Amino acid sequence: MNDQRILDRLVELGIELPPPPAPVAAYLPCVVHGSLAFVAGQIAMSDGVVLHPGALGDQVSLDEGVDAARRAALQALSALRETLGGSFERLERILQVTVFVASTSGFVEHPKVANGASELLAEILGETGRHARGAVGVSSLPLGAPVELLMTAAVGAA
Amino acid sequence: MNDQRILDRLVELGIELPPPPAPVAAYLPCVVHGSLAFVAGQIAMSDGVVLHPGALGDQVSLDEGVDAARRAALQALSALRETLGGSFERLERILQVTVFVASTSGFVEHPKVANGASELLAEILGETGRHARGAVGVSSLPLGAPVELLMTAAVGAA
Amino acid sequence: MNDQRILDRLVELGIELPPPPAPVAAYLPCVVHGSLAFVAGQIAMSDGVVLHPGALGDQVSLDEGVDAARRAALQALSALRETLGGSFERLERILQVTVFVASTSGFVEHPKVANGASELLAEILGETGRHARGAVGVSSLPLGAPVELLMTAAVGAA
Repeated sequence: MNDQRILDRLVELGIELPPPPAPVAAYLPCVVHGSLAFVAGQIAMSDGVVLHPGALGDQVSLDEGVDAARRAALQALSALRETLGGSFERLERILQVTVFVASTSGFVEHPKVANGASELLAEILGETGRHARGAVGVSSLPLGAPVELLMTAAVGAA
Repeated sequence: MNDQRILDRLVELGIELPPPPAPVAAYLPCVVHGSLAFVAGQIAMSDGVVLHPGALGDQVSLDEGVDAARRAALQALSALRETLGGSFERLERILQVTVFVASTSGFVEHPKVANGASELLAEILGETGRHARGAVGVSSLPLGAPVELLMTAAVGAA
Repeated sequence: MNDQRILDRLVELGIELPPPPAPVAAYLPCVVHGSLAFVAGQIAMSDGVVLHPGALGDQVSLDEGVDAARRAALQALSALRETLGGSFERLERILQVTVFVASTSGFVEHPKVANGASELLAEILGETGRHARGAVGVSSLPLGAPVELLMTAAVGAA
């Protein structure tokens, strides 16, 4: 995709792309091999702290869960862009997104939470952003995050 | 694989392929890129309602869990066939199946539940249906479903 | 990668590669297609029994969780090597590792548990072992295991 067109679209939507996640010791924010890119699990952070900590069905409201999923998707895009050399030029398609939602046993609205991510990707990337998706409820997530998002994308040659 | 041979095999097994899942707004039932197909998470539905709602180790029996996994795998095959143009002709191999089982903390028989999906795929597709698998217990699933299944497959050129 | 060099590295680290997991009826320990290898979910076993059964945040200590993740990663390498014809020669890169941690709702140290796997892969394989990662807490796992690990790798032509 044209990098500038996506940056323009972000401005149009009033969305700021967060800085790419800092590399950590034990694994990488994103690995590209051939035409596939695997983005590491993203939990929504804001100013260095976890956004809306807790579980859906308990302390975290549906709106907060949606917001966390949306933010995690943005971070995944940022990690992907950084790994692709600081540009979306090579991005061809978002293939798969898995949204893990920290949830009580009675929670049933995982799709609404995950839509925070899916709708954002479609808003920014159009057809390129439409993906296969899984949404499941988990008992807990790193740092008490309400959502963790994994993304796989198709990329063109370097 | 030969589409008619698989349809014949389904008749032989007395299995009806469910209609492909309706496309939803925010994501796609299946995305194909190159030689890979990613099927979105399937929860077993019957006549528009969730089959056997609840958790394993609680309201849902092992047999019901197996049935839900089997049905979810059938739905995944149906979504895949639809996306491949209404035929299994391009299907080369089921690569990976991940089975998320809504479970209490004490439940340990996730492999038996997941076998509902794995054995069905082998029955219908033979060697082509044998896959790598993950089976994990989760706190809750969309609409209160007992099982959600993700599938990745290898496909030939269009 | 050079198989002998990896075997030498294992000796140097004092690590014994466990025997490859026995094939089971319903699915395969590892499926290779094109340049991708999908390793089935590994739970840490020792002498035929589950290592450190239970949940993190409850009966299982952080050190035990790390140990289980490390062991599961070794088993995944063993399954991969066996499927690649008993050699690491064709292994090009570990792409993605997902670590499911059986956890209470209050547990937050999933990354530390998953580091048991990630650090081991880097120790043995160097840059080749560095991957994208997801780490999530789940309600329960097969046989009461504390950790289940899924791995995707890039492989060269046979």
